[in-house]
Amino acid sequence: MTEPAFLFDLIARQGMARAGVFHTPHGDLMTPVFAPVGTQATVKAVTPQQLEEIGASLVLANTYHLYLRPGAELVAEMGGLHCFMQWPHPILTDSGGFQVFSLADMRKIDEDGVTFKSHIDGSTHRFTPEKSIDIQQKLGADIMMAFDECAEPYDRTYSERAMLRTHAWAERCKQAQTRPDQALFGIVQGGVFADLRQYSAQTIAGMGFSGHAIGGLSVGETKPEMYAMLEVVNCILPENKPRYLMGVGTPQDLVEGIRRGVDIFDCVLPTRLARHQAAMTLNGRINLLNAVHAHDPRPIDEACGCYTCRKFSRAYLRHLVVAKEMLAATLISIHNVYTLLELVRQARQAIIEGRYGAWAEKILQHEL
Amino acid sequence: MTEPAFLFDLIARQGMARAGVFHTPHGDLMTPVFAPVGTQATVKAVTPQQLEEIGASLVLANTYHLYLRPGAELVAEMGGLHCFMQWPHPILTDSGGFQVFSLADMRKIDEDGVTFKSHIDGSTHRFTPEKSIDIQQKLGADIMMAFDECAEPYDRTYSERAMLRTHAWAERCKQAQTRPDQALFGIVQGGVFADLRQYSAQTIAGMGFSGHAIGGLSVGETKPEMYAMLEVVNCILPENKPRYLMGVGTPQDLVEGIRRGVDIFDCVLPTRLARHQAAMTLNGRINLLNAVHAHDPRPIDEACGCYTCRKFSRAYLRHLVVAKEMLAATLISIHNVYTLLELVRQARQAIIEGRYGAWAEKILQHEL
Repeated sequence: MTEPAFLFDLIARQGMARAGVFHTPHGDLMTPVFAPVGTQATVKAVTPQQLEEIGASLVLANTYHLYLRPGAELVAEMGGLHCFMQWPHPILTDSGGFQVFSLADMRKIDEDGVTFKSHIDGSTHRFTPEKSIDIQQKLGADIMMAFDECAEPYDRTYSERAMLRTHAWAERCKQAQTRPDQALFGIVQGGVFADLRQYSAQTIAGMGFSGHAIGGLSVGETKPEMYAMLEVVNCILPENKPRYLMGVGTPQDLVEGIRRGVDIFDCVLPTRLARHQAAMTLNGRINLLNAVHAHDPRPIDEACGCYTCRKFSRAYLRHLVVAKEMLAATLISIHNVYTLLELVRQARQAIIEGRYGAWAEKILQHEL
Repeated sequence: MTEPAFLFDLIARQGMARAGVFHTPHGDLMTPVFAPVGTQATVKAVTPQQLEEIGASLVLANTYHLYLRPGAELVAEMGGLHCFMQWPHPILTDSGGFQVFSLADMRKIDEDGVTFKSHIDGSTHRFTPEKSIDIQQKLGADIMMAFDECAEPYDRTYSERAMLRTHAWAERCKQAQTRPDQALFGIVQGGVFADLRQYSAQTIAGMGFSGHAIGGLSVGETKPEMYAMLEVVNCILPENKPRYLMGVGTPQDLVEGIRRGVDIFDCVLPTRLARHQAAMTLNGRINLLNAVHAHDPRPIDEACGCYTCRKFSRAYLRHLVVAKEMLAATLISIHNVYTLLELVRQARQAIIEGRYGAWAEKILQHEL
């Protein structure tokens, strides 16, 4: 189908960095934006109400997981993902490709698609570009991803083959889309090879997607390699459409990604770290299991405005961790997600006020 | 010390059932009241904010658990339990006795107290009446319990011995109390033996406590035996002080307890059931793991006003349960606690309006 227009308004620019507004059927996204991950239609340990309270605007859900359980048909029957998980704001779904290709021995790729075994029960399934779009249309997210193949970043032969297949599949995804109320993003691949990334960005940019994702990064390559690839790709991707760096991540990567023109990020890091007792702050991570916190009446971060930091001491949080109480994961998740949301809010403001470089330098002085 | 006055105003009576207001330093309790249990200074899987939103007024915390971890000194250092767990409303602590006597082979009782081994690391500890009060004063709850011995309910010899020890310990607890801002409750024991219960109620009632607890019930005896003991005890306990039935419980027991003059209840049931996928409703329990809920767009209870029922379908909750997501325990806990709070709210209103019998009959028509 002809891709409908999903408007992306650029508000301010500084170098490659941009502040914008991406308009979706479930609300406007102020970019740069960070999406917490709700793999199985829930951001782990946090209610939608708590997510709203900390100012989350976009949530990512995983097509592979929801396809296996509870199934896309069930989600559609319940009115789609927004209704099912009670998140009335924008949602992004990935294509399922990354999870399927991570299954290693349990999947077989051909030009048409991928046959794989479920990690839950070993049953056999098949994803094609058409199937991925069909599932994502049933889920009904505001932003969908084209089905792509993520290669080993240092294997040039495989990276090239995966990239070409990704391009062919991107075209098929465009053809398969029938719902006009979902933005479809094409995905750039090409490993750590500048010429492949360049070719991929040109090819995908020429297909007329509503936005562009940068895949196959943060999968084992070095930071300088990732940043170099971002520079290659973002010089080519059109400025009037949002750019999404998939699966990234750390505060440092957000700062460096925004500096290089990325608008959208997602990562499991804040919620996964929370379940392992690690609190993220803009001065570095804190392991709340550490005995040094046992008698500490201070919050995780005295400068933080989240519910956890407004209310609870490190001593209490450490007690919850030691006592293996579920509330620990909830309170630390609230704090960690808030920290990344606050980081991108600050970044946006800095871009608007033309002081991104100084702000970034201040953030990056700490080991994050 | 001389027990300060903690006022208990009776608003309405119907037969033995009463509606009242118990005034505590952290707010008024509208009785009958149900206290969710926060064993380790957290009602499992629920934030204080969520507890406030569902209208909880009183939370119980366990002296034994908090003494072992994180320690009463630490809680005191952090400003007491209200501050530590960020629950600014009334808190009740038990005496630690019930947990210690449940340790079976790991404890040894003498007239002066109990020596026991920690369930966490096997280390040896000793509770006496004075020690229990010392710990509870450090925790700083609004309502404290005298240190009591809970016997096997059908063992007459042991029940009598434990009762006599409980009376001696009650007197020592009164003597040990130094903080005037905590209400101390004496505990009636006596197993399933009416004459022992009568003697215990008379003895404890004569000691001038701010309120009275009924211990050693819901520990293996039959329902008719429990109800009979309540009738014996509550005819003796003075009307102008609140009565607390410890560790109870089910909707049916709340209805029957209130009918027999009980004002305060606590139980782990709503949160424990929630972690085992069981939702409580006034029409009976629902096992959310059951496949029958997979496609059900209805909430747990269409008549319920809790966050979970206002927002989420049984289909979504079942998905969370099947996918082993922590949010399941949170959302079902919110619902279950709300259900019991709503039950006692309804009971109170029925007493005030003089229609408790008809209301109770309606509630008890279901298997609860």
